[in-house]
Amino acid sequence: MKFRVGVIGGGQLARMMIEPALAMGLEIKVFAENEGSSAALATTQVGDYTKVSEVREFAKTVDVITFDHEHVPLTVLEALEAEGISVQPPSKALKFAQNKLHMRTRLTELGLPMPAWAEIKTADQLEEFISANGGVAILKTPIGGYDGKGVAVVRSASDAAEWLANISDFGGSLLAEQKVDFVRELAQLVARRPNGEIAHWPLVQTVQRDGVCAEVLVPAPKASDDDLARAAKIAETVASGLGVTGVLAVEMFETADGQFFINELAMRPHNSGHFSIEGSVTSQFEQHLRAVLDLPLGSTASVSAHSVMVNLLGVDDANDFVNTYPRALAAHPSAKFHTYGKAARKGRKMGHITVIGDDSIAVLAEARAAASVCLQG
Amino acid sequence: MKFRVGVIGGGQLARMMIEPALAMGLEIKVFAENEGSSAALATTQVGDYTKVSEVREFAKTVDVITFDHEHVPLTVLEALEAEGISVQPPSKALKFAQNKLHMRTRLTELGLPMPAWAEIKTADQLEEFISANGGVAILKTPIGGYDGKGVAVVRSASDAAEWLANISDFGGSLLAEQKVDFVRELAQLVARRPNGEIAHWPLVQTVQRDGVCAEVLVPAPKASDDDLARAAKIAETVASGLGVTGVLAVEMFETADGQFFINELAMRPHNSGHFSIEGSVTSQFEQHLRAVLDLPLGSTASVSAHSVMVNLLGVDDANDFVNTYPRALAAHPSAKFHTYGKAARKGRKMGHITVIGDDSIAVLAEARAAASVCLQG
Repeated sequence: MKFRVGVIGGGQLARMMIEPALAMGLEIKVFAENEGSSAALATTQVGDYTKVSEVREFAKTVDVITFDHEHVPLTVLEALEAEGISVQPPSKALKFAQNKLHMRTRLTELGLPMPAWAEIKTADQLEEFISANGGVAILKTPIGGYDGKGVAVVRSASDAAEWLANISDFGGSLLAEQKVDFVRELAQLVARRPNGEIAHWPLVQTVQRDGVCAEVLVPAPKASDDDLARAAKIAETVASGLGVTGVLAVEMFETADGQFFINELAMRPHNSGHFSIEGSVTSQFEQHLRAVLDLPLGSTASVSAHSVMVNLLGVDDANDFVNTYPRALAAHPSAKFHTYGKAARKGRKMGHITVIGDDSIAVLAEARAAASVCLQG
Repeated sequence: MKFRVGVIGGGQLARMMIEPALAMGLEIKVFAENEGSSAALATTQVGDYTKVSEVREFAKTVDVITFDHEHVPLTVLEALEAEGISVQPPSKALKFAQNKLHMRTRLTELGLPMPAWAEIKTADQLEEFISANGGVAILKTPIGGYDGKGVAVVRSASDAAEWLANISDFGGSLLAEQKVDFVRELAQLVARRPNGEIAHWPLVQTVQRDGVCAEVLVPAPKASDDDLARAAKIAETVASGLGVTGVLAVEMFETADGQFFINELAMRPHNSGHFSIEGSVTSQFEQHLRAVLDLPLGSTASVSAHSVMVNLLGVDDANDFVNTYPRALAAHPSAKFHTYGKAARKGRKMGHITVIGDDSIAVLAEARAAASVCLQG
């Protein structure tokens, strides 16, 4: 018997799925946008994922289609599903990931904790929302935003003049959300099979800089048993309620009084789960493959009391971080270095470092120190 | 900067080097004997490793040549080295792996503990060795043996009549070794860089069945601090004394009075080190890549108190073990399953299972139970 996974998208998430596929003897093929992608080693087709004919050709070579990103048009996914092809997560789940207004509507139906929000079609509606929410709002384009793009802090409709003038580009609506006065950001990772089996990793704290994940602390410091259970319950409710399969990341704000508010969802392995490669019995990448193939899920227990992941964001066009290995590996023999085979570019997610151990302070210090050597070039 | 490793041989050891190469962004290319090998994903050339011209062509595409096996002829390796190509381990070390008589001679010069041994050219010499060693000897072909092949227990020269009659096939000599009355078998894994840096993993116990490794227990049960230090010292002396680079496995017998006797050497990642993928901060496969590239070595600390590895040896022509995943993964969510992408065949090394944890009894029981589900088909 073979278990053959086809991944659409050749980024680092696809790349990191190759490793457990090799380990477990699962076949993996990647449909990439271009030659020389991060996942080039397993790429069997280069093409345009917005074209049904191209994706269909790829789908014929595998047992299930899954994703490195959430941008494949629903029309393409629905066409494949209509032909009996297994798409995981399915289009009925991905529609919520692709449109934040649909997502907010569905999460509201599920009674999940969220910032106040409203669909905005006019400047007047935006002004009304802003004044009802303390004079400020987070305005989002419902489609296409990630890593801080498609998000703006607005204090009046004039701050959003350009988006409002081009609102038809965003499907005719914008999403306004209450600006939550949070004390920190958290992420809860779960995985779910088509048969409904679900597993969660420990709640993590994410540290964002300029809208991009910089560090992840595992488990989230000072999280109580109630916090951990509450976060897991939220993410499991999202996964089941939206019909997600594979890995789901639920990004949340925590307020000073300990409430959680759902911020964003990602229906794929996520930066907040990279720690699990070394930190968990089953990594998010292995678990994603198991889940989309409807194979039994692995243990999400931690192999160490603490894990810290620090992202390696590009500093210029020269430092690809691999070039720093002679110094970085020598100074930090316990740190695990990951790079994604990408050309160097300022701000780009080029790699990450994970350190695991018993002492949370030491683990954080070691991961930051190792990253520091890499960033110095 | 790129660090490009070329691996000769497309077996499971090459396959398991691909995973850390992907993780760390090191380039890896494989020169395989045939299409569809275990390491097919990274194969860039299929050819005959006994032909200098073919291996040279491959070597031009990488920074260093290393190995999945020890069978590349010395003449090929020496020709590459003469052209300035980095071969790790170098021919001067591999000559000891390729000829057990050379190996015994060199280990004797280094004063390392070994079974009594003799070079055998005639029936009379063999009879003399047998009578001097309690009426029995382990007779080995000096070249080409592995996994129990090329080894015979002999009690008289007539037991070795066929090898003696064809002695020129083995270079004109056989190797006779004392049959050590051992209580168990151990293996000590080390890695060494060209610059001399060396690192050792904990001593392990190996359980052999029919001359093939069946289980590995980590660390070796009841090993004292002195045992651990003594074993590490032996392996480090071998690595330095023979000029080995990359991973070296030293297989040893332990006698009732606690002596260690060197049995076999392997100058590559070894079955006794597969536990390190999950059990160690740095796996033998990652460490091998680091070592042959002359990059700083990683920590060999254990991430858990105990690890157990159980091999999955083929039971028939149908069960490739991947087919058993639906049941095996469900019953054993904490076990880590590895399969090598090989067609099923009785007795073949098809995969392995590793379990890590704090309780040595529970870890062993879980690994065996997980393997049992797979072996049932």
